[in-house]
Amino acid sequence: MKTKIIKPAENAHQFQLLIKSLLLSGKRCQPDNEIVFSDVIRYDYRTLYKRICKLANVLTSAGVKAGDTVAVMDWDSHRYLECYFAVPMTGAVLHHVNIRLSPDQIGYTMNHAEDSLVLLHDDFAVIAEQLDEQLPGVRGYIQMTDDQPVSTSLHTFGEYEALLDDAAADYDFPDFDENSVATLFYTTGTTGNPKGVYFSHRQLVLHTLNGASTFGSHEGQPLLRSDDVYMPMTPMFHVHAWGVPYIATMLGVKQVYPGRYDPNKLLRLRREEGVTFSHGVPTVLQMILDCDEAENTDMSGWKLLSGGSAATQALAQQMVKKGILLFSAYGMSETCPILTCTFLKHPERDLALSEQMPQRIKAGVPIGLVDIRIVNPDGTEVLHDGEATGEVVVRSPWLTQGYYKEEAKGEELWENGWLHTGDVASMDQNSVLEIKDRIKDVIKTGGEWVSSLELENLISQHDLVAEVAVVGVPDDKWGERPCAMIVAARGEEIDAASIQNYLQQFVDSGQINKWAIPQQIRVVMEIPKTSVGKINKKLIRTQVA
Amino acid sequence: MKTKIIKPAENAHQFQLLIKSLLLSGKRCQPDNEIVFSDVIRYDYRTLYKRICKLANVLTSAGVKAGDTVAVMDWDSHRYLECYFAVPMTGAVLHHVNIRLSPDQIGYTMNHAEDSLVLLHDDFAVIAEQLDEQLPGVRGYIQMTDDQPVSTSLHTFGEYEALLDDAAADYDFPDFDENSVATLFYTTGTTGNPKGVYFSHRQLVLHTLNGASTFGSHEGQPLLRSDDVYMPMTPMFHVHAWGVPYIATMLGVKQVYPGRYDPNKLLRLRREEGVTFSHGVPTVLQMILDCDEAENTDMSGWKLLSGGSAATQALAQQMVKKGILLFSAYGMSETCPILTCTFLKHPERDLALSEQMPQRIKAGVPIGLVDIRIVNPDGTEVLHDGEATGEVVVRSPWLTQGYYKEEAKGEELWENGWLHTGDVASMDQNSVLEIKDRIKDVIKTGGEWVSSLELENLISQHDLVAEVAVVGVPDDKWGERPCAMIVAARGEEIDAASIQNYLQQFVDSGQINKWAIPQQIRVVMEIPKTSVGKINKKLIRTQVA
Repeated sequence: MKTKIIKPAENAHQFQLLIKSLLLSGKRCQPDNEIVFSDVIRYDYRTLYKRICKLANVLTSAGVKAGDTVAVMDWDSHRYLECYFAVPMTGAVLHHVNIRLSPDQIGYTMNHAEDSLVLLHDDFAVIAEQLDEQLPGVRGYIQMTDDQPVSTSLHTFGEYEALLDDAAADYDFPDFDENSVATLFYTTGTTGNPKGVYFSHRQLVLHTLNGASTFGSHEGQPLLRSDDVYMPMTPMFHVHAWGVPYIATMLGVKQVYPGRYDPNKLLRLRREEGVTFSHGVPTVLQMILDCDEAENTDMSGWKLLSGGSAATQALAQQMVKKGILLFSAYGMSETCPILTCTFLKHPERDLALSEQMPQRIKAGVPIGLVDIRIVNPDGTEVLHDGEATGEVVVRSPWLTQGYYKEEAKGEELWENGWLHTGDVASMDQNSVLEIKDRIKDVIKTGGEWVSSLELENLISQHDLVAEVAVVGVPDDKWGERPCAMIVAARGEEIDAASIQNYLQQFVDSGQINKWAIPQQIRVVMEIPKTSVGKINKKLIRTQVA
Repeated sequence: MKTKIIKPAENAHQFQLLIKSLLLSGKRCQPDNEIVFSDVIRYDYRTLYKRICKLANVLTSAGVKAGDTVAVMDWDSHRYLECYFAVPMTGAVLHHVNIRLSPDQIGYTMNHAEDSLVLLHDDFAVIAEQLDEQLPGVRGYIQMTDDQPVSTSLHTFGEYEALLDDAAADYDFPDFDENSVATLFYTTGTTGNPKGVYFSHRQLVLHTLNGASTFGSHEGQPLLRSDDVYMPMTPMFHVHAWGVPYIATMLGVKQVYPGRYDPNKLLRLRREEGVTFSHGVPTVLQMILDCDEAENTDMSGWKLLSGGSAATQALAQQMVKKGILLFSAYGMSETCPILTCTFLKHPERDLALSEQMPQRIKAGVPIGLVDIRIVNPDGTEVLHDGEATGEVVVRSPWLTQGYYKEEAKGEELWENGWLHTGDVASMDQNSVLEIKDRIKDVIKTGGEWVSSLELENLISQHDLVAEVAVVGVPDDKWGERPCAMIVAARGEEIDAASIQNYLQQFVDSGQINKWAIPQQIRVVMEIPKTSVGKINKKLIRTQVA
């Protein structure tokens, strides 16, 4: 169709949505707020800007050019935050290396990404030395250290802080096309090699603007506003730490980066630095609630955003006891990531916190600019009655436009012009999304579909259960049957029969059908997790097969 | 420079920033919130969406095609809100007719804009009938009435509500280029014909996202969040009512549209509907404080955003007494409009409200994504010391890219790639912008520059002064001398000498120099205003010359 498009004045500035534009407001509004790295360094927003300029000069001196890919391997630090900005702002691509992958997989992703420079924390020097020969494209390393640099055989340009000390504190960040790739990272699927997803400057700016409005504008349930203090508990290599470092920097809020995650240290930093907002996957949140430091700590007013998978009722109730305000969000590596967030309507907001939890652990309501549908396999939409389920498909301005150098897989992801999440969900009349399962984790038994997540949620509420995972195992008669893997609560013992008896009540009440009760229940010391702390169902299936 | 740009998957949806995407979230989060039009109609967000679909069907039936220009002449109403969405969402351009211009000027703008359909409130039927012969491009009118339609000789397609009643409640809003023009309106300069400024879908979406974050994320000084109730007091034809109807709709907040402005009615609606947030130019805010209904009304908690020109200290102190929370913003027709907004840092926020006022009446801090400079005539930046002044030039994603069909004027506006605001300002170390004057209103006397705004501000604080305007008048000896036009407070008398005596204290304290004291002071019944309620200095200069 022929809409009216007017050629701009020749002199008119064509404002591109570039990551550098997110740095304009924070230092104007709250220049004195601090960036804190663990117990190592703290500085204000004026210094942050200068350090980003310095880092850009260091990168340029190390030969980084627009279009190059620069890898970062670090724990959560002020340095990583600086890389979030300086690398893409020079026109290069920031490869967030997933440091929890196996060395082989790390090598695969670094080769596939064509990394040319690596900013490398000393803790990963041994891995990098192993991989170096397989990475002919890497021209060198910048060493990042919290103490004294380790000695290494790698070709390094120097140590991060020393290089910054010597660099000029201004840099004329260029303008370029907002569709330029800013970040790249890899997601591990159930089969095959890790797949690369990538996001442009435009996508990250829009994700940030929308996130700021979502986190700030909901009265009575704010997540992140100008007075908050932010500390991530989702690693910074993992889907932009859910985009929050960009949002926090735009607002100029105080940010605390904790280094390598240690639950006791996280809780100490929270207390000492006055952290009010964090986010993490349920397994990390559980670790924190279970650590020594947690025992006598009042956590009132700490806002925790949970995502990656749904928090269980049991975890939610533990949080209530600690005074934590739990929120949920939903998204995935392919979606930048935020698609939905807890939004409580008025009658719900007026309930006691513990009674709000059934709502708070759902995925929440789709946020602004997110067009979401729950569809049948034929693409028709299911009813929004809280019952009918289908696959979540989505359109929004911040979705990966394909898989990096994997054209066919990108087309599959975007079949029919909608991004296919692979998640099965329902939506209720209040537009609250509830994720029922991954399509591939749904258990098909006796002609019925059983949600592994629903079963996990029920079993997790048993007093003697600390953790649980449910998968489907092949069964000659029923097609599949559910199998549960259980970790008992500390110092407790538990057996299969008591779990089966416990579940019978939900069969009696009609909440699940009788085939949903797992015949096979394994009590284990530990449940396998993926590199980002999610339950590794692929591995569990292999183990129980 | 050659950054990395990856061709999207063929199936991948290229999300365009279209106004329709702002409608996704409000009805999901707060479907029960209401749109209220005066005492005429109220409905919820589900109905709003259906009515926008209906209106789009009505427009299509009336022959509106993508790229056409559709004019609206209405007071602030639910209908106007529906036009904010439906007109651009069909791909047409919404011409906001400035109904306060003279009939000749209205005719000029409608011809220049090439309006093809006019949505016309009955109150403007007489003007439209006068103009109709001069508007051969107009194919017809849709009548908008609050009661019984007036009879008219115009070719009408019918009455708005009746047409909506008969239309289908769904419409498949098309995707198109986000750079398509969505809105067009005219600004009256000091010379020549009104000039058209225009804004694309992309620009309005970005202005909205950024406005939502600005208004919501500032803790301790929120303007507009999900629980607020919004009522405009800047007419909807005037720079998108500062963009707030779009922000409010995205958030799903309750909105109250007051029809034709009547101070007593505005205050009644505020009370009855629980309005918490409004905005207006200082003259409108002054009218409201001075009306009968104001006398015994407590206005505690009403957040008022002032803009268009700076509120005076006197007005600000009146607001303090009423319990009103005053905020300021700065912008102009060319800038969509918002560029800056009050942001108080912590020590200021802790002061008593009356002591915050000197900060609150300044233009505020530039908001996110706004790149602003205060420059000397040679383009170099002045110091940010709160003293040095220069012209405000700006870049941001929501600035008009020229003047409609006035190429040369567009290039002048954008000289050197920065939008030239024509405003003289200083910026302090806290990034607070203070507008000193329009470049053309600065008074050059005896080799010194005198800010007409500063003089107005001082004079306004005199107990017996209700309103004041200061302009420069030619003077053989001094180049220019300031001349003040004054309205005395109700029931009071005032003379020139007492004002001159009063100003002497500011000369003594060094705040102004002795040449700044106006020799010529005129006491008048009324100060000339422009169509949008600003002081009309152009006319005053003619009157006093």
